[in-house]
Amino acid sequence: MTVLKGNLIFGQSGGPTAVINSSAAGVFEEALKHPDIIGKVYGAPHGIVGILNEDFYDIGQEDPEEIKLLQGTPSSLLGSVRYKLADPDADDSDYKKILSVFRKYNIRYFLYNGGNDSMDTCDKVAKYLEKQNYDCRVIGVPKTIDNDLVGTDHCPGFGSAAKFVSTVTMEVFLDSRVYYDGMIIVIEIMGRHAGWLAASSALAAHKGYGPDLIYLPESDFDLDHMMDDVSSILRRNKNVMIAVSEGVKTREGKFIPELVTEVQTDAFGHKQLGGTASVLCAYLADRFSMKTRAIELSLLQRCAAHLASGVDIEEAYQAGAEAVKAALAGASDVMIGFRRKAGPYAIDIVTVPLEEVKNQEKKVPRKWINEDGNGLKQEYIDYALPLIQGEPRQVLEDGLPRFARFKKIQAGRKQNS
Amino acid sequence: MTVLKGNLIFGQSGGPTAVINSSAAGVFEEALKHPDIIGKVYGAPHGIVGILNEDFYDIGQEDPEEIKLLQGTPSSLLGSVRYKLADPDADDSDYKKILSVFRKYNIRYFLYNGGNDSMDTCDKVAKYLEKQNYDCRVIGVPKTIDNDLVGTDHCPGFGSAAKFVSTVTMEVFLDSRVYYDGMIIVIEIMGRHAGWLAASSALAAHKGYGPDLIYLPESDFDLDHMMDDVSSILRRNKNVMIAVSEGVKTREGKFIPELVTEVQTDAFGHKQLGGTASVLCAYLADRFSMKTRAIELSLLQRCAAHLASGVDIEEAYQAGAEAVKAALAGASDVMIGFRRKAGPYAIDIVTVPLEEVKNQEKKVPRKWINEDGNGLKQEYIDYALPLIQGEPRQVLEDGLPRFARFKKIQAGRKQNS
Repeated sequence: MTVLKGNLIFGQSGGPTAVINSSAAGVFEEALKHPDIIGKVYGAPHGIVGILNEDFYDIGQEDPEEIKLLQGTPSSLLGSVRYKLADPDADDSDYKKILSVFRKYNIRYFLYNGGNDSMDTCDKVAKYLEKQNYDCRVIGVPKTIDNDLVGTDHCPGFGSAAKFVSTVTMEVFLDSRVYYDGMIIVIEIMGRHAGWLAASSALAAHKGYGPDLIYLPESDFDLDHMMDDVSSILRRNKNVMIAVSEGVKTREGKFIPELVTEVQTDAFGHKQLGGTASVLCAYLADRFSMKTRAIELSLLQRCAAHLASGVDIEEAYQAGAEAVKAALAGASDVMIGFRRKAGPYAIDIVTVPLEEVKNQEKKVPRKWINEDGNGLKQEYIDYALPLIQGEPRQVLEDGLPRFARFKKIQAGRKQNS
Repeated sequence: MTVLKGNLIFGQSGGPTAVINSSAAGVFEEALKHPDIIGKVYGAPHGIVGILNEDFYDIGQEDPEEIKLLQGTPSSLLGSVRYKLADPDADDSDYKKILSVFRKYNIRYFLYNGGNDSMDTCDKVAKYLEKQNYDCRVIGVPKTIDNDLVGTDHCPGFGSAAKFVSTVTMEVFLDSRVYYDGMIIVIEIMGRHAGWLAASSALAAHKGYGPDLIYLPESDFDLDHMMDDVSSILRRNKNVMIAVSEGVKTREGKFIPELVTEVQTDAFGHKQLGGTASVLCAYLADRFSMKTRAIELSLLQRCAAHLASGVDIEEAYQAGAEAVKAALAGASDVMIGFRRKAGPYAIDIVTVPLEEVKNQEKKVPRKWINEDGNGLKQEYIDYALPLIQGEPRQVLEDGLPRFARFKKIQAGRKQNS
């Protein structure tokens, strides 16, 4: 093992989660344990854009107690970004800038926390730096509530989102059945391309308080098929609960809100994309002439740190800490991944080449979905249930969460310019 | 004190809350302690309708452990109802039926858990039974997330809803500010006539992670005024967070969704009442040409037992238990109320004549709202903060709530017919 002395920079990218900051805590705490090798630990606001702007904070000056509080602080403390680097063969200006910043600040460790796109960014940066003979270890730290990264059993962020979705689905189930009159309730859950999170509503059903029907993007969505499914439930029950992924599409490739854009306009005559749940409710109310209610879990499902999974928090932390250890041990151009062991739930933390991860999507296996394409099988329950275990790690102050507060002391050009 | 021997019946009415079942636990556990006086403890499904249908359960046959679990079970275990009794002078058929059921089952204690309308029901029943010389003690147990009952400092159900609203507002605040680009976010909170719950978003602002602007039904809503408020925030900040009560109305008495009904139609050409938040977002997007996001907290805010306030759970329980004690001591035609003591937060539990409570609405005092009508003063914080303290009382099983399960053994006519 070659000891590579220099500084470390870390950034957060893509949609935030309840535990993305827990990975940051893992990176920061582990990195700060090695001052002999890692001189400075930097945090880049808004990910790669912070680096391009030579804008970053000196994490070593933060209070260790505040770093610890990251484990109960949702969203992205450093600020996130959706920025896709160009193909370096087409336009290498961003890469040149990154290299010049890395040289200027002697960055030898670049750790990046994000989803598919971010892993692509990592891979491109790693390969460019290598080509330029600049010695820098680049490690991707996975995160996404969508749980769609390949190369890992599951992704940090998913367990907490799944715990929120399944718990509130159970609560809404009870709430929606208190009156004599029946109702059709439709819960809309995030996940543009993969149905992992919408599927977590099956955990509520598994406990007896969950949806009768679950529709995922893994199957073509068919409105008539749904009407038949609902009719069938209504024959034995006055209430129907439906969970639907925002990402479901018809065979023709249309998202649900696109089915009605022709007639929906907002106050100003603009076409208004209703939410998936509210559009389905309009169809259902028309067909069954009964009360419907659309519930969009919206941002809450990805930021509910008050209901985070303890397993997820710990694994997100370990993903960050192990990324530092892997980098120190010489790894580069890899992502941290989880490999599930046989037997009672446990994982090994491994490294996976970014090449194998980037720009891919892992879907819910078709064999875990029932034949009718409207529910999940026991295989999914066995997969997901261990991931939602354990308590959140929040410090409360006056009954409300005490989030981490960083001083964010500028260490980039603003200081040096 | 006259000892009145007989049976007790309890019902739940109106919109459910996270702690309405905690009051049920208080009623059941206290009532079951006095088998020498209270022979049978009945629970009526769907409140007064259960009684009218001679349909009720024998609570004495339920497992005491399941009764305890009610403290972590949201919604209304017995089933709720929205049913307004006629004026007995106009139509006394329901009252006659109630009296005949009470005679048949020797009901001498009628405890009813609900809001304004339910207190009116209680009062009418109490007065009718008295007029008929039927000795029965009638006690109202308050509940409403709207917190708008007079005669009590606050209502069971409010504290838990306020804890949920303030906590998720803090989380959404962080989530909505992760990108470079600014955004206007509008959170819609329940409360048709009073703004107590929407105001609880001020607790999030008090902690530094909350709305810039809060609009309550206590002030006339003015769209131009809001645009000015938002402009003013945007001058110093790229992000704006707005909390709005679903009950805000213009000076002309129109709810927000009614402002645009002329042009909004759903997939079938029906007029579609958009939510308050989404309609405001349409106006804001048009005016400021920037990203907006509407979040409707929907049913979650009233059923989130996973984030219930410990103070609220305990007080809801005590309201139920004290209702039984008050009835045993001879009280009738009263509601249980909370009187706040001077000094550190504590309450006395009192009885208030239903006459003074029914069909009234307590609003947020105008002097607790700022002059511009877009925020709350410290008086509100001091009022609300003690009510959201303490932990939920949930038993978890596989990381998900274990709700109470009742056998619901029929004790009414179904058994005797």
